[in-house]
Amino acid sequence: MPKRVDLRSDTVTQPTEQMRRLMAKAEVGDDVYGEDPTVRKLEELAADMFGKEAALFVTSGTQGNQVAIAAWAERGDEVIVEAESHVFYYEVAGISVIAGAQPRPIVGQMGAMDPEDVRQAIRKRDIHQPRTGLICVENTHNRAGGTVLPIEILRATASVAREAGVPLHMDGARIFNAVVASGIGERTWANEVDSLQFCLSKGLGAPVGSVVVGPRAMIDRARVWRKRLGGGLRQAGVLAAPCIWALTNMVERLAEDHAHAKVLAERLANMPGITVNLETVQTNIVLAELTHEDVMAEPFIAELANNGVLATAFGPRTVRFVTHKDVSQADVEMAIDRIRQTIAHFGIAQ
Amino acid sequence: MPKRVDLRSDTVTQPTEQMRRLMAKAEVGDDVYGEDPTVRKLEELAADMFGKEAALFVTSGTQGNQVAIAAWAERGDEVIVEAESHVFYYEVAGISVIAGAQPRPIVGQMGAMDPEDVRQAIRKRDIHQPRTGLICVENTHNRAGGTVLPIEILRATASVAREAGVPLHMDGARIFNAVVASGIGERTWANEVDSLQFCLSKGLGAPVGSVVVGPRAMIDRARVWRKRLGGGLRQAGVLAAPCIWALTNMVERLAEDHAHAKVLAERLANMPGITVNLETVQTNIVLAELTHEDVMAEPFIAELANNGVLATAFGPRTVRFVTHKDVSQADVEMAIDRIRQTIAHFGIAQ
Amino acid sequence: MPKRVDLRSDTVTQPTEQMRRLMAKAEVGDDVYGEDPTVRKLEELAADMFGKEAALFVTSGTQGNQVAIAAWAERGDEVIVEAESHVFYYEVAGISVIAGAQPRPIVGQMGAMDPEDVRQAIRKRDIHQPRTGLICVENTHNRAGGTVLPIEILRATASVAREAGVPLHMDGARIFNAVVASGIGERTWANEVDSLQFCLSKGLGAPVGSVVVGPRAMIDRARVWRKRLGGGLRQAGVLAAPCIWALTNMVERLAEDHAHAKVLAERLANMPGITVNLETVQTNIVLAELTHEDVMAEPFIAELANNGVLATAFGPRTVRFVTHKDVSQADVEMAIDRIRQTIAHFGIAQ
Amino acid sequence: MPKRVDLRSDTVTQPTEQMRRLMAKAEVGDDVYGEDPTVRKLEELAADMFGKEAALFVTSGTQGNQVAIAAWAERGDEVIVEAESHVFYYEVAGISVIAGAQPRPIVGQMGAMDPEDVRQAIRKRDIHQPRTGLICVENTHNRAGGTVLPIEILRATASVAREAGVPLHMDGARIFNAVVASGIGERTWANEVDSLQFCLSKGLGAPVGSVVVGPRAMIDRARVWRKRLGGGLRQAGVLAAPCIWALTNMVERLAEDHAHAKVLAERLANMPGITVNLETVQTNIVLAELTHEDVMAEPFIAELANNGVLATAFGPRTVRFVTHKDVSQADVEMAIDRIRQTIAHFGIAQ
Repeated sequence: MPKRVDLRSDTVTQPTEQMRRLMAKAEVGDDVYGEDPTVRKLEELAADMFGKEAALFVTSGTQGNQVAIAAWAERGDEVIVEAESHVFYYEVAGISVIAGAQPRPIVGQMGAMDPEDVRQAIRKRDIHQPRTGLICVENTHNRAGGTVLPIEILRATASVAREAGVPLHMDGARIFNAVVASGIGERTWANEVDSLQFCLSKGLGAPVGSVVVGPRAMIDRARVWRKRLGGGLRQAGVLAAPCIWALTNMVERLAEDHAHAKVLAERLANMPGITVNLETVQTNIVLAELTHEDVMAEPFIAELANNGVLATAFGPRTVRFVTHKDVSQADVEMAIDRIRQTIAHFGIAQ
Repeated sequence: MPKRVDLRSDTVTQPTEQMRRLMAKAEVGDDVYGEDPTVRKLEELAADMFGKEAALFVTSGTQGNQVAIAAWAERGDEVIVEAESHVFYYEVAGISVIAGAQPRPIVGQMGAMDPEDVRQAIRKRDIHQPRTGLICVENTHNRAGGTVLPIEILRATASVAREAGVPLHMDGARIFNAVVASGIGERTWANEVDSLQFCLSKGLGAPVGSVVVGPRAMIDRARVWRKRLGGGLRQAGVLAAPCIWALTNMVERLAEDHAHAKVLAERLANMPGITVNLETVQTNIVLAELTHEDVMAEPFIAELANNGVLATAFGPRTVRFVTHKDVSQADVEMAIDRIRQTIAHFGIAQ
Repeated sequence: MPKRVDLRSDTVTQPTEQMRRLMAKAEVGDDVYGEDPTVRKLEELAADMFGKEAALFVTSGTQGNQVAIAAWAERGDEVIVEAESHVFYYEVAGISVIAGAQPRPIVGQMGAMDPEDVRQAIRKRDIHQPRTGLICVENTHNRAGGTVLPIEILRATASVAREAGVPLHMDGARIFNAVVASGIGERTWANEVDSLQFCLSKGLGAPVGSVVVGPRAMIDRARVWRKRLGGGLRQAGVLAAPCIWALTNMVERLAEDHAHAKVLAERLANMPGITVNLETVQTNIVLAELTHEDVMAEPFIAELANNGVLATAFGPRTVRFVTHKDVSQADVEMAIDRIRQTIAHFGIAQ
Repeated sequence: MPKRVDLRSDTVTQPTEQMRRLMAKAEVGDDVYGEDPTVRKLEELAADMFGKEAALFVTSGTQGNQVAIAAWAERGDEVIVEAESHVFYYEVAGISVIAGAQPRPIVGQMGAMDPEDVRQAIRKRDIHQPRTGLICVENTHNRAGGTVLPIEILRATASVAREAGVPLHMDGARIFNAVVASGIGERTWANEVDSLQFCLSKGLGAPVGSVVVGPRAMIDRARVWRKRLGGGLRQAGVLAAPCIWALTNMVERLAEDHAHAKVLAERLANMPGITVNLETVQTNIVLAELTHEDVMAEPFIAELANNGVLATAFGPRTVRFVTHKDVSQADVEMAIDRIRQTIAHFGIAQ
């Protein structure tokens, strides 16, 4: 089989040899008893890096977001979310099932909610209305194309949240892409929010794992929720060990993914039948819009897969490409080539 | 105290003498055992009027909507709702708490969701995404200003729903206002939806009560949900009796409320510092926008109340007025006068 | 049709003429706005009678219990309940669905949990275990046969609850039966618990209605829950008016029901094929055990219904009879006669 | 520090060298896309071993039970569970929070519910009562002392379940202890139930992981629930690889743990101030009751820990000891010695 380039997601990354070695020799204990030294080390490292009191290791970004939401919001509260955010769009209605809270989606611009819209969405005290229990932001924003949340918008949102006495959570599954793209450190980002979830298993390449950071009392509540969801693991150090390595060694490498995405985006933007909003290509995600009336995303990615390049249909005419550590510059070139062939296959000409 | 005109809501209507007499002599039984003859009569009448198999008496529009939603949607499903609809905006996050389902709000035009937006919002099968379990429409639409849902939009929405195999529920709390304003009968409206909730306690003037109509199996499930919510009443015939009277005697009278609202709207539209979108004034609700930069809705309605006219703040600069059976033409004239005085009080001139 | 004696439940009682008159002339307002003067009067009267800060009118005992439980317990808490209590047995799993809490049933003696068992059931702090969020008692206890909760057991339970910092709720749907049977006033009972729900629609004969009493902050939370469940009514004064009358005029009359139940129980106890634990016959409920091996409760009550007497199957061989205001001494005599005939029909002899 | 013997739980076991090697070289993919070959291999192996259509890898026994319960039971159903079972006692009220179902605990004998009690607990159709949606059994039963569920009791329970049309789930976290102790194979056990959860991370020694087996449609629903709880992992093969090894190499070894437990139990039974019900010591768990009136479990285990032996307080006077792969015969001897010293420390003499 010829080489395949997998641009579906940065979740497909394979652990490095170093990660595998660390896994094999990790010092472990029973983490439900709080006795896994490697998990504790990861949690301490994460809390320290992000400048928060405490941290909690979880098995996925979804679990991290859900335990954070349930730790903040009471049953029957409303949670303000961006209309295309992961917590609302891709977590199988978890907010309603687990926290028993109602999401209140606000349509953002390139993934960023207008702080004034957030202010207006905060509920007044009224017997007919739920209490606003939490505000969530996403950074970088997946469905908007990996866009970085402008820090001034975050600050204004934080100010709205503080005034209203509502906690603010960041789904920072790809926060390190934001850090690398913006030059703004993770502590600066975290400083504006009450809690933050980040993933080690996406661009950073660890096989499994995410971390929630926040104030100790909230993390304690989140830990109970993690147990309830079956996320209390035993010798979890085998997962935490590669996460520590990822956190300390894999962040800067993300710049390569961003460079690859930029190249890919610019080349796609010049192809017939495709448009790319280059303004959104800030990190490792490229959203391509198919503009030819006869070409829909589903058959396009099926044909592209036949040509050895995997991507994701993200809308009826939207295709998402994600660069990551297992995609080299040569892979990007090959992908560009195959995308061009696929376009030709559909008979699209300039 | 001088006379007060209460334009806050049509929920404030007092029962008529006839209703009170019927209540006092209602034949009653234990409705939890299905033995209240007056409740049964109301349910049969309602099912027949709307052309549905079965009906269920509930204590409020909220309860009617919630038991219908829980009867259709499974836990973890998504429910498509209009972004300003009552089920999403004013039912205290009930969808998430009771059915355990996630609302998916779609921004409509004058309360009506574009059927194409509804189609796009129906979820694809994907492990990350909830199943779309129900679509809800509201007719007339309260927060849009009492607008009638255009029947062709309803038909297109119903077609989208059918194609996707998703049931369609109508919050018809004020369906009879739609019937009177459009000349389209309740059966025609109901024919397009799987279930419908309507209120007897708003414009129709009954003290308490709403009814859900739908297929028998769904009504049976809704009955279990009603019991769970504590809506299983004993000698409920005392409430059902005035509801029957309201249903058979009070519908045509709504035309007066609509005429009053029209007068009020037109006069308000000519006042300084106020705009009214007359296109939305189709039934008994008038939304007035305060356009003067110094005048906000809350202090405005407080001062208006001092002048003997009650209205509701519906947004930072939006005031809602609702006409109903206890508001006469003279009351409307008085209200117009007092609104003018209140505007003057705030120093707004042409 | 010959006269029928309905001993299924005290919920079947018909409103009196006086109640009907009061309903017809009740002063009413919109109770969602807190403006129904009759509802307010009922709530003030109830709070005062029970010596609590505040009260909330609800449409049923189930709704009263459920809003109280949700107002006290957090999502994921455990609620200690008696194993045969109404909140656990007959409220359609409401504790789990509405409050999102787990019931922890304790088997009681004649409906009363041993306070030491309650103490043992209170959870230790442990990551695997839910927090104990509430303790519920029932007085009188329906499935135990209408037994009065011994006040010393209640006091010991209250002491356990206080020590553990866990609130205590009483399902007092039939608290006035306990008051009349024990001579212990409602205030004395209420003094031992944090909140209490009582029904006006059972022995007291009102058509619809129950009340929750408790501290103001808890009642405020319960009011939000009532709205969420669709229990926010408009002109609810039409229901509250007969409730006020029931509360002030119908309590002492319960002694008659108790006398009737005693007569019925003693006569049943002497019939062949039936045993009655007379110790449990303290109020208006009689549980008869069918001892003949060929006679089961379901066919027995079916045949008894043919003979004009209605009762409830309460277990495979248990039949429940409930006396109430619409059952006269003559009715009791007739019922005894027909029960004897029914026994004969099944061929049971001494 | 002198050697410590950890008898708190078999969850504390360290992965073997072989497991660590397999982890390091595991072939992995993205399991959310269904592309992790090692996870698929584990799931196929598990389904085949237990004779079920399909299997699902989860991160813990709790997660396995909860996704199984949510996959079977509908919101508002009742789930029959043993009163001391893990799903009820140790899963943080998950049944109520996640499935939205009400547990119905039945007190068993040595962990086994009487099938006749189960039959009686299945709800009749009645508007007041939840539907019985699932029956759960536990084998071996942790809080009963690791007892094996007698197969004839399981068969009778399965027959009750089938008659009533209610599915039957087994929490088989320690099913292989039951297999080894009883000589009854896992397929025979699984044949009696609709679904079964078993753990690789307890006696079998894998660092993390459990598996649910059942019919394909149920496993598909469970997979959605796993995603909702955040249990959808990416390169999960790193965890699955040692699980496969555990499943194929570690089962027979459990006999040693059982032998160690037996020795420990018999020796404890002869010590002053301790009783052990030897009848319950069937696998790797020993429950010791402290009989001296001045000695409670908490201070006892604290002192015992000072002496280098860790155990768990399982009740006010109950101490649990669990043997496992990291406890040798010499460790057992040492533990016995230290327990004797601890008894002496408390001044208990024959």
